Amino acid sequence: MHDQRLAAARVAHLATTDADGRPHLVPIVFAIHGTTLYSAVDQKPKRSRTLRRIENARARPNVTVLVDHYDEDWQRLWWIRLRGNARVLDNGDECERALALLTTKYQQYRDTPPHGPVLAIDITQTRTWSAS
Amino acid sequence: MHDQRLAAARVAHLATTDADGRPHLVPIVFAIHGTTLYSAVDQKPKRSRTLRRIENARARPNVTVLVDHYDEDWQRLWWIRLRGNARVLDNGDECERALALLTTKYQQYRDTPPHGPVLAIDITQTRTWSAS
Repeated sequence: MHDQRLAAARVAHLATTDADGRPHLVPIVFAIHGTTLYSAVDQKPKRSRTLRRIENARARPNVTVLVDHYDEDWQRLWWIRLRGNARVLDNGDECERALALLTTKYQQYRDTPPHGPVLAIDITQTRTWSAS
Repeated sequence: MHDQRLAAARVAHLATTDADGRPHLVPIVFAIHGTTLYSAVDQKPKRSRTLRRIENARARPNVTVLVDHYDEDWQRLWWIRLRGNARVLDNGDECERALALLTTKYQQYRDTPPHGPVLAIDITQTRTWSAS
């Protein structure tokens, strides 16, 4: 959380767990506030088909997020891995604050504000690695 | 597998499952041959401490790999998600061929050849998404 690289990173990867136990993996844009990471659903899912990451997080809140840097100079590789407990914010004050944080970080959201639900991940463990 | 972007990608993300059911996530370099993805362990793990991704893959071979592209122009975002069954190659012909493939793709490995074990992932499902 106190790592500048984490707050500055533009993309992360979120791993959740499918109902059959297999890991599910998506890239996310995100914002950090305190020890909570927030990510929104960019496109409103169709009513008939909610997003798997959200369904997974509701049912199995133990999730993992990785922020990493790839460089052809492998001495510059690093990653930060976060474990946390996910909460799905369908609406409410925290949801609104998270959407505002995301819109501040990502100019892209200013034209097309994100919809809910918001995934809030309360970070319980951080592990950092770097090659050099 | 027939996607040029997949073969050309320099980095991917591998999700395995920890013994407690939580997803584990690492960036990997990789090479594709046919319908199998190969990735080596870059640094020989200490004898007392094998790598978690390898232990997870041995015990719970249902893994997921994501190759994705981030761009500040969100119309250019794309990802390719692979589900597959992992095998750990401690040695043998397939292990040697995989190490050769990786060394061909990554110049970085020419100075410091990768060690085994090699993770072989037989791809059973591919899903592709792009924003535009």
